[in-house]
Amino acid sequence: MTIRKAGRRVIQAAAFFMTFPLFSPGARGADTLHSWNSGPTKLAVLQFVRDVTTEGGPFYVPQDDRIAVFSHDGTLCPEIPAPVELAFLMDRIKTLSSRHPNWKSKEPFRSALSKNLNGLASAGTRGILELTAAAHSGMTPEGFEATVNGWIAKARNPRLNRPYTECGLLPMLELLEFLRANGFRIYIVVRGDAAFLRPWAERVYGVPPGQIIGSSVRTKYEVRKGVPVLVRRPDFDMLEDGPGRPSAIYRVTGRRPIAAFGSADGDLEMLRWTAAGEGRHLVLLVHHTNGGNEFAYDRKAMFGRLDNALDVARKSGWTTADMTKDWNRFFTKTGR
Amino acid sequence: MTIRKAGRRVIQAAAFFMTFPLFSPGARGADTLHSWNSGPTKLAVLQFVRDVTTEGGPFYVPQDDRIAVFSHDGTLCPEIPAPVELAFLMDRIKTLSSRHPNWKSKEPFRSALSKNLNGLASAGTRGILELTAAAHSGMTPEGFEATVNGWIAKARNPRLNRPYTECGLLPMLELLEFLRANGFRIYIVVRGDAAFLRPWAERVYGVPPGQIIGSSVRTKYEVRKGVPVLVRRPDFDMLEDGPGRPSAIYRVTGRRPIAAFGSADGDLEMLRWTAAGEGRHLVLLVHHTNGGNEFAYDRKAMFGRLDNALDVARKSGWTTADMTKDWNRFFTKTGR
Repeated sequence: MTIRKAGRRVIQAAAFFMTFPLFSPGARGADTLHSWNSGPTKLAVLQFVRDVTTEGGPFYVPQDDRIAVFSHDGTLCPEIPAPVELAFLMDRIKTLSSRHPNWKSKEPFRSALSKNLNGLASAGTRGILELTAAAHSGMTPEGFEATVNGWIAKARNPRLNRPYTECGLLPMLELLEFLRANGFRIYIVVRGDAAFLRPWAERVYGVPPGQIIGSSVRTKYEVRKGVPVLVRRPDFDMLEDGPGRPSAIYRVTGRRPIAAFGSADGDLEMLRWTAAGEGRHLVLLVHHTNGGNEFAYDRKAMFGRLDNALDVARKSGWTTADMTKDWNRFFTKTGR
Repeated sequence: MTIRKAGRRVIQAAAFFMTFPLFSPGARGADTLHSWNSGPTKLAVLQFVRDVTTEGGPFYVPQDDRIAVFSHDGTLCPEIPAPVELAFLMDRIKTLSSRHPNWKSKEPFRSALSKNLNGLASAGTRGILELTAAAHSGMTPEGFEATVNGWIAKARNPRLNRPYTECGLLPMLELLEFLRANGFRIYIVVRGDAAFLRPWAERVYGVPPGQIIGSSVRTKYEVRKGVPVLVRRPDFDMLEDGPGRPSAIYRVTGRRPIAAFGSADGDLEMLRWTAAGEGRHLVLLVHHTNGGNEFAYDRKAMFGRLDNALDVARKSGWTTADMTKDWNRFFTKTGR
C-alpha cells in the first residue's frame, strides 16, 4: 500500500466514524447505506440495528427473531401512476379481452381496458377482485409464473420510463441488504396476489417466494391425464388491508416482527402492532415528499394515501424517511 | 495418533467409500446418516442429493429451489398412542374443564376428558375442530405460545416414556440435517394448528416457525387499553388432508417441492404432486414395520394409516424407508 493510499484510507475511516458514531462491530455493513443522508433518520436505523445485534447488550435479539416486514407499493417502489400489479392486471385483461367481447361495455373491465385509473379506483376492492379473478386463474401455478415472467421482462413504468424490475427505491434496496447482512429475515407484504410478486421478488429485492405475504388465489388439486397438477381458481384468500396485515404476518411468520416499514394508511396497524412488541423495535414510514420529482404524494394520493398514519407516526415518535431530506439518490442507473 | 488408530481410520474410510460409491464432493455431510443401513433406500437418498447439488450436471437444482416437505406425525416422530397435538388437546381440555362442568357429559369433550382415543377417532374432524376451537383460542399468540411451551416442557409420550421433544425419529433428524447441509429449505406440514408446533419445532427439528405449514387459527387485531394485540379466534383456516396438502404447500412456499417425505394415506397427493415435477425428485415413504418394537403399524392404524399410499409407492417406484431393514437406531439417547 502506498503512503498516499494509506492516508486516504485513514481519512475515509475517520469520515466514516464521524458520520456513523453509533456504528459498532455488532452491526455489519453500515457503510452500505450510501443513498441515505446523515441525520436522525439514518441514525435511528443504525442505532436500532446496533442494539438488537449487540450480543450481551440489553436489547439483543437472537437472529431467528429478527423479522422485518416491508410493504411493497410505495415503500419499496413508487406506486405512480399505479401499483405494478394493477399495470399487470390491465395488460392481462387486454390480452384476454379478445375472448370476451362483452368486456368493452362492462365495468370494471371497461375501465381496465381503457386504463382509466379513476374508474378502477371507484370500482373499489370488489372491482379489483373481479378483474383479478378473471386474469389470475384458470391455469397452473407454473403457467401463471410463466405469464408473469413474460410480462415483467418487457413491462416498463410509463412515468419513470424504466423496467418495473428497476423501479426499486435504491435507499430501500440498500436497507434490505443492510438488514440481511445483520441476520434479519425479510418479508414483503402485499395486498394483492402474492403469486404475482414471487417470480421476480428474489431478483429485485433478494426476498424468496416463501417470504412474500399477500392474498392467495385458491388452488385445486387435479389429476389430468394421470399427471397431478394444481389449478388456480377464481377464488381468493384475501389479505385485508389495515387490521388484516398483522394477522396475515402472524399467520405466515408465527412471530411479531421487530421492524416494520410502510408508506400508507393501510400499513398503520402493521406498524402499531410492531411498535407494541417487547424490546427494541424500528417502525419507519417512507414519506414521498420529493416535490421536485413526479412522485411527491401523501394526504390525497389515489394509491397509497398517507394521511392518518403520518399523524400517528409524529405523535408516536416513529421514524419517518422524508425522501427529500433523508435520501440523496432514488434509483439505480438503468441500462435501458 | 497411534498406528492402530490410524489403521482403524483407514479401514473406516475404505468402508465408507465402499458403502457410498455415489458420494461426491457435490453432496455434503453424507457420512452423517449414521442410523441408516446401507442399501437401496440410503443410496436413493444420496444419489438424489448428489444429482441436484452437482453444478453443471444434468439434474442440478439451484439452492433456492431445493424445497423439501415433511409430514410430521408418523414421518418425523411416531404417532403412537396418539399424535402429540392430540395429547396437548386432551390435557388442555382437562385444564379448562373446571370452567365448563357440562363438558363431562358432552361429546367430544367427554372422550377428550377420559382420553378415549376411539371416541375421539369417531368424533372425526368435526370433533377435533370443536375441541381445538375451545382449547387454542381466546388468547394472544404470545399467550398461546407460553401455554404450549409450558406443556411441552413437561409432557411425555406415555408409550415411549420420553419427552415429546425427544421423540423425533433419529434417522429422520439426520436426514433433515443432511438436506440442510446441502442447501435445502425444509418445511414441515401438519394437519392441525401450525401454532402448536412452531414454538418447539426449531429446537427439535431445526425448522423455524415460518416453515411450519398447517391449519391456522384466525386472529383479530384489537387495541386493548391503547395496546394493539392479536387475539386468537375459535375459527380456522383448515389445511385439508390429502388433496389440500399440495395447495397449502404452494400457498406458503410458492413452489413445487423437489423432495417430499410422508408416512400415511393423507400424504399421498403431496407425494404424487412432488413426483410429477420436472427434473429429479425424491419421494419417500416411512413405513413403520418395526415389529419388535411397539410402533409397527400401517394398513389398519387408528392414526396415520398407510394403506393406499403404500400400494401407489410400490407401483410408482417411490423410495420406501422400511424401519426394520433401513434403520439401525430410532431415537437419541435420553437423559431423563
